[in-house]
Amino acid sequence: MTMTAAVKAILANYESDSPGTKANLARILMQGRLGGTGKMIILPVDQGFEHGPARSFAVNEPAYDPHYHFQLAIDAGLNAYAAPLGMIEAGADTFAGQIPTILKLNSSNSWAMTRDQAVTGSVDDALRLGCAAIGFTIYPGSESFFDLVEEIRELSLEAKSVGIATVIWSYPRGGDLSKEGELALDVGAYAAHMAALIGAHIIKVKLPSDHIEQKDAQKAYEGTDWSKQSDRVRHVVKCCFNGRRIVVFSGGAAKGADAVFQDARDIRDGGGNGSIIGRNPFQRPREEALAMLDRLVRIYKGEE
Amino acid sequence: MTMTAAVKAILANYESDSPGTKANLARILMQGRLGGTGKMIILPVDQGFEHGPARSFAVNEPAYDPHYHFQLAIDAGLNAYAAPLGMIEAGADTFAGQIPTILKLNSSNSWAMTRDQAVTGSVDDALRLGCAAIGFTIYPGSESFFDLVEEIRELSLEAKSVGIATVIWSYPRGGDLSKEGELALDVGAYAAHMAALIGAHIIKVKLPSDHIEQKDAQKAYEGTDWSKQSDRVRHVVKCCFNGRRIVVFSGGAAKGADAVFQDARDIRDGGGNGSIIGRNPFQRPREEALAMLDRLVRIYKGEE
Amino acid sequence: MTMTAAVKAILANYESDSPGTKANLARILMQGRLGGTGKMIILPVDQGFEHGPARSFAVNEPAYDPHYHFQLAIDAGLNAYAAPLGMIEAGADTFAGQIPTILKLNSSNSWAMTRDQAVTGSVDDALRLGCAAIGFTIYPGSESFFDLVEEIRELSLEAKSVGIATVIWSYPRGGDLSKEGELALDVGAYAAHMAALIGAHIIKVKLPSDHIEQKDAQKAYEGTDWSKQSDRVRHVVKCCFNGRRIVVFSGGAAKGADAVFQDARDIRDGGGNGSIIGRNPFQRPREEALAMLDRLVRIYKGEE
Amino acid sequence: MTMTAAVKAILANYESDSPGTKANLARILMQGRLGGTGKMIILPVDQGFEHGPARSFAVNEPAYDPHYHFQLAIDAGLNAYAAPLGMIEAGADTFAGQIPTILKLNSSNSWAMTRDQAVTGSVDDALRLGCAAIGFTIYPGSESFFDLVEEIRELSLEAKSVGIATVIWSYPRGGDLSKEGELALDVGAYAAHMAALIGAHIIKVKLPSDHIEQKDAQKAYEGTDWSKQSDRVRHVVKCCFNGRRIVVFSGGAAKGADAVFQDARDIRDGGGNGSIIGRNPFQRPREEALAMLDRLVRIYKGEE
Amino acid sequence: MTMTAAVKAILANYESDSPGTKANLARILMQGRLGGTGKMIILPVDQGFEHGPARSFAVNEPAYDPHYHFQLAIDAGLNAYAAPLGMIEAGADTFAGQIPTILKLNSSNSWAMTRDQAVTGSVDDALRLGCAAIGFTIYPGSESFFDLVEEIRELSLEAKSVGIATVIWSYPRGGDLSKEGELALDVGAYAAHMAALIGAHIIKVKLPSDHIEQKDAQKAYEGTDWSKQSDRVRHVVKCCFNGRRIVVFSGGAAKGADAVFQDARDIRDGGGNGSIIGRNPFQRPREEALAMLDRLVRIYKGEE
Repeated sequence: MTMTAAVKAILANYESDSPGTKANLARILMQGRLGGTGKMIILPVDQGFEHGPARSFAVNEPAYDPHYHFQLAIDAGLNAYAAPLGMIEAGADTFAGQIPTILKLNSSNSWAMTRDQAVTGSVDDALRLGCAAIGFTIYPGSESFFDLVEEIRELSLEAKSVGIATVIWSYPRGGDLSKEGELALDVGAYAAHMAALIGAHIIKVKLPSDHIEQKDAQKAYEGTDWSKQSDRVRHVVKCCFNGRRIVVFSGGAAKGADAVFQDARDIRDGGGNGSIIGRNPFQRPREEALAMLDRLVRIYKGEE
Repeated sequence: MTMTAAVKAILANYESDSPGTKANLARILMQGRLGGTGKMIILPVDQGFEHGPARSFAVNEPAYDPHYHFQLAIDAGLNAYAAPLGMIEAGADTFAGQIPTILKLNSSNSWAMTRDQAVTGSVDDALRLGCAAIGFTIYPGSESFFDLVEEIRELSLEAKSVGIATVIWSYPRGGDLSKEGELALDVGAYAAHMAALIGAHIIKVKLPSDHIEQKDAQKAYEGTDWSKQSDRVRHVVKCCFNGRRIVVFSGGAAKGADAVFQDARDIRDGGGNGSIIGRNPFQRPREEALAMLDRLVRIYKGEE
Repeated sequence: MTMTAAVKAILANYESDSPGTKANLARILMQGRLGGTGKMIILPVDQGFEHGPARSFAVNEPAYDPHYHFQLAIDAGLNAYAAPLGMIEAGADTFAGQIPTILKLNSSNSWAMTRDQAVTGSVDDALRLGCAAIGFTIYPGSESFFDLVEEIRELSLEAKSVGIATVIWSYPRGGDLSKEGELALDVGAYAAHMAALIGAHIIKVKLPSDHIEQKDAQKAYEGTDWSKQSDRVRHVVKCCFNGRRIVVFSGGAAKGADAVFQDARDIRDGGGNGSIIGRNPFQRPREEALAMLDRLVRIYKGEE
Repeated sequence: MTMTAAVKAILANYESDSPGTKANLARILMQGRLGGTGKMIILPVDQGFEHGPARSFAVNEPAYDPHYHFQLAIDAGLNAYAAPLGMIEAGADTFAGQIPTILKLNSSNSWAMTRDQAVTGSVDDALRLGCAAIGFTIYPGSESFFDLVEEIRELSLEAKSVGIATVIWSYPRGGDLSKEGELALDVGAYAAHMAALIGAHIIKVKLPSDHIEQKDAQKAYEGTDWSKQSDRVRHVVKCCFNGRRIVVFSGGAAKGADAVFQDARDIRDGGGNGSIIGRNPFQRPREEALAMLDRLVRIYKGEE
Repeated sequence: MTMTAAVKAILANYESDSPGTKANLARILMQGRLGGTGKMIILPVDQGFEHGPARSFAVNEPAYDPHYHFQLAIDAGLNAYAAPLGMIEAGADTFAGQIPTILKLNSSNSWAMTRDQAVTGSVDDALRLGCAAIGFTIYPGSESFFDLVEEIRELSLEAKSVGIATVIWSYPRGGDLSKEGELALDVGAYAAHMAALIGAHIIKVKLPSDHIEQKDAQKAYEGTDWSKQSDRVRHVVKCCFNGRRIVVFSGGAAKGADAVFQDARDIRDGGGNGSIIGRNPFQRPREEALAMLDRLVRIYKGEE
């Protein structure tokens, strides 16, 4: 497939990266039904780690099989599939070359006693499994934030040196943050900005509310109407180097399909690059999931 | 011995592994009286570390000698022998090539003040001792869980790079878990799933009870009858990548032989791959142990 | 451009450094409108990390774009541009060779719970991005001071081995220091001296007040009139190996332009080497910022 | 000297070790007046670290000189001399080839605030000083036990890779252990067993009392008469892989010569390999010490 | 200069060291007016780190310049100059070959909250700066003692491997030690002995008082009259391997010249190797300092 102008424009923003890393970003951007549009949908499946297998998969039994998710992402025409080590190992050969994979390198679980994650994989794993990118979660605001940053800066440097891209999940939590504050606009924009500052190629955050959490930040936000979600998306994108970095938003817990579609329209209208959406599709029957993903693709294509 | 279809099918699930690692898994799967069936019995002897020598061996004095255990595993026609560094060193040459060994790389002891283990060996040790696999214990739920995960992910990556398989003992304990919860079905299935996610080739868990520990998991389990042990085994196997990983179950403390045999039948009927059984055989006189192991072999062969 | 006598004299003080490191110091000293004078103005933009993007850039929207700052530093004829990893990555290629860059290797943020910073980059990053220097913050007096020192001593040794210069931001805080004490003359001079002792090429401190914080230091300061800011600057410079190290002073929070100009005159008159000034210019409209920086340049040239 | 059958039998138990490591064990076993018997006496001098120089040497002033101890061990016809780094450095060249040395790699001191030791040397030190073995203390039961184990497992792996033997001092203390329990039979046997499990070639423990400390271990010990010290020695030896590892016992604080001799007879009769005895000889005048060591040698030779 | 018999005798005690390390010890022993006598005076200037620049240098303003101290040590005919990284860097080229330098590798400061020091340099720094030795402070008795020991054992091993000597400052403090106890004879002798045990070539301690701090050590000291300072020096020297290691004593805080001279006579008469003396000379005007050092040299030469 010939590289489109939209993708060329995005890649040009990664001006310090090696051809190898750009090629892996291009693999993701040129994959699937959104290939070439500059938009992307990524299927992440790390809920087995976070919530356990039964809570994740009992509702849709075929999803216990790692191959199910590879196939779902391929059949839906998505851009990439992201999962922890074992999940990727279990399908890396069968689906080699069929869809770019993102190896999620750290994970938490239901019993975690700190706002931290365990590192569960390495750049060497990503290389041997043919992954296009590594994924990593940071918790801005938590007591482990500095440690998480120091872990990803080493992994990311190593990844860049071998031409692998870096995706950072930036989830504010812990410390002085209120529960509401974890989703606040100022907090989410700050979290996205820090992911950009530590060198992420793709930044993944939650859709922010119109709450402003930090007192010191009130002044910078007042006088603007933040009630429209698309405006909030646009602000987050601006906070990622004025749109020089790819920003995708997560869908959150499984919810009504209509809400999912509206989120996607807001992401699109606000200039976001797409969605990372996991539980919503894989906790539905495959046909329903394919239908939902088809509609999301069409939304990002501007077809509805 | 020609590779059987059953073993070929199992090995095919380890699709990201090198021929070297697959060969070591095959060594275990093709060994002994269960060789080729896809079932396995492993003799583990780390109780000297966990409980001290007298509590472990006084009841059967020949068991003080490391050679005793190698010979017992060989004579009973088992698939592998697992033990800590010193125990393997003491027989590695005498029994070289007679039975695959699993070097247990971490251990706790009676005086441990935290839910943690000390690393007592390395992949280099496994190589020089000709081991087919490394073994490692993790404690999901404990305050040391992240540290344990980060230790095994490094050891496992190194092992895979030199063609050695990884066996993970996944024992939930500590933290918010109740004593009953350590054996709960949801907890055990979660623990097994996490072992798969961090890259284990063989997963070792305890036989779960029908208790459901986690509130958030109740919904996923309700509406199903979990009273049969074989069904619980089947659920755990499903949680290990829908059966794409070898799962073996431990026999627990020495108990009546009948209970041991019933456990094995349930493991077999539920689709488990076999037993790791230590104290039950080696704390009995050798002839009784051989008789017990003979019967277990026949159960796994479906002969009774 | 031919090296001036003023710059040659400064470089001669770095007698243990390699030609490579001296060449990078020379790149900074010979750059821009102050090139060759021995004075320098550096534009630092790490407020996005420290305060978040909106608090930093909302007041001057073009500043959300990393290219804005490169261009501002170039157009104003400054000596160098300092920023964290992502900010440098985003413009390193476009502006390659147009202005020396300083890669800031550690950063804090609004939610930090300790007087510490996370390491966010490496000397390898500085090399691949073509930076002339690395930057690093230490907090004398804080509970993390020893750790920070041990981090920079490793980074600095590595940087010197590849010909990259080291800039240390030395900010006393925490521990027994009073709020007023953080800006005290004795404390600031001590902080600058320690930066010199651990091997900094360029030392960055805040302009000190005439307060003397430490009881034990009172005697050394009494009998001298410290009311003039230029005299305090001269004392700090003397504490940096009697002027053998380059010392620059920060402008602090955005304030009135007149105060900024007076500070620069005092720095110049006290023998300081210049200013690191960030928020004051980039939180003003570009034309105002250029006017302010133009006047600062003229002050350091002794033209007003 | 031709290798004796007794020594050949012992070396055969170290079946996983390289010829280099066996040669160093042989050097110790074939040295001095007990050379070839399979018994050994080792002179350890680390009391300067543990108790300070005056408490250690003032009672016998020539002992302040490191050469004194080398010469004493040689003149008494002992098998090896063990000491910390500086003590070995101070005589390594003068006495090179005259007696095998054991470099003690960790030490505590009178002011230690935890049940831990500082690592004070390395395998590289042992190599450059021509040592036959490294020595290391572990404290089973203490809060530092896991750390100590992880330190020695790395040092021991490295030592084995260069043909140097490992001697482990296994001293239970701290945690839940009572003072009496530190010398209990079950505790001492457990401590010796763990030293064997982590790969020691030579295990050094204290002579155990007939106290049984652990409730859970009572059953394993009841019904046997443990009042004879030689029987307790035999039990400890059995717990070291049924006699497949060399076990030596310490003499404890300086005491009456008759008690020392009786201890040696019990060690010999119980199948122990010998004594590590320091303060008893070097805190006596040289002639008395030589007489004491002469008698110990004769006891181990079965001559009295 | 031909090597003298006195120096040859000292070097012979360093029997395990490489010719490279001995050559660096010889450089120090053969330097200056005491060259060849076996005695030495070292000028240490790390007070800027410990107390800050103004408290250290305001009393003698030329001392703010690092070159001042190099020149003072050269002009006074001393044996070596010791200072932290930045101080050595600032003069290493100008004074190359004129006086041996000792790179002080760790330092504390006025705000330290623990009895610890930060590592501020490396053996690689010592090599590139042409230093004859590294210097390192340990705090026997403090909660950080084990960490400090483990740091210096690694640095010292590395230094020995490249032919650089090791000087250890051994300063008891913290923990259970009383203020008076930090200077007690038994404590100082113990501290000196531990420095020898961990492999120091030159040991630096404070002149001890006649107080005996440790109850357990009383017996070893009773019955001897310790009222003469020279006898206490002799005891410390004996505790450093019976005089096989070079021992120098510090002058403490600036004090009256007569006390300084008497200390030197006592050190000389007790068999100590000399003084490390900093504040006393550099906090006096240069001419006074030269006169004081001249007299110290003459005392060590036995000329008064």
